[in-house]
Amino acid sequence: MLAVAVAEARAGLAEGGIPIGAALFAVDGTLLGRGRNRRVQDGDASAHAETAAFRAAGRRRTYRDTVMVTTLSPCWYCSGLVRQFGIPRVVIGEARTFHGGHDWLAEHGVDITLLDDPVCAGLMRDFTAARPELWSEDIGRD
Amino acid sequence: MLAVAVAEARAGLAEGGIPIGAALFAVDGTLLGRGRNRRVQDGDASAHAETAAFRAAGRRRTYRDTVMVTTLSPCWYCSGLVRQFGIPRVVIGEARTFHGGHDWLAEHGVDITLLDDPVCAGLMRDFTAARPELWSEDIGRD
Repeated sequence: MLAVAVAEARAGLAEGGIPIGAALFAVDGTLLGRGRNRRVQDGDASAHAETAAFRAAGRRRTYRDTVMVTTLSPCWYCSGLVRQFGIPRVVIGEARTFHGGHDWLAEHGVDITLLDDPVCAGLMRDFTAARPELWSEDIGRD
Repeated sequence: MLAVAVAEARAGLAEGGIPIGAALFAVDGTLLGRGRNRRVQDGDASAHAETAAFRAAGRRRTYRDTVMVTTLSPCWYCSGLVRQFGIPRVVIGEARTFHGGHDWLAEHGVDITLLDDPVCAGLMRDFTAARPELWSEDIGRD
């Protein structure tokens, strides 16, 4: 499942965007929605990868049977999304380059799998070194 | 400032949508972005009012000089948005019909003004009575 999120992150990088990707799956592995950070591409500050994947999945009555997969630890905004909509499981590519709200989600009963994937970490390490101002903007860091 | 958010909520109701509105202002009162819940109108589960107003404000390097005004207590998703982007102040129309994450925001230093406005409360009371299944969907309640 991480491969879909990584493909989104790489597509974002190729577009000149921020290389973070995500996908929402059903527990049986069915892909419900996939997306990537679109701040640069769409001028949309709200389009974080997890939110983009959630949006792409359309309207749903419940998320109890879903898994959010993301290349990077979800920020507070995307962690809030997971908590509000009751997504019970999150698979995270890495949290070395950014530590978001996944501990808080775990405290509130979300099943967190942190993979420490070198491909995900490499994408963000290279990006944050090359474009620190864009990364700061994306996470609201002055 | 609440009047702008209420106008958005009413416009949403007139469109057949969920009557929650929001607006992002600069501290000097300049309107930066306004929006309303667009779940029904756009089929977009991620388009909560605060997120729509944030999106409408475009890309910004900082939110330190902004105020988020919303007709209803922000859910975890929208509370996470406020925390992640460092919006220092939130003005809330009411929290009678839904109690979101504003206490958590206050614990983390956000200045919360809760108005207990009867117009905002009336809009949501009527809506949740008329469309309980749609309201449950909007907040991820099974």
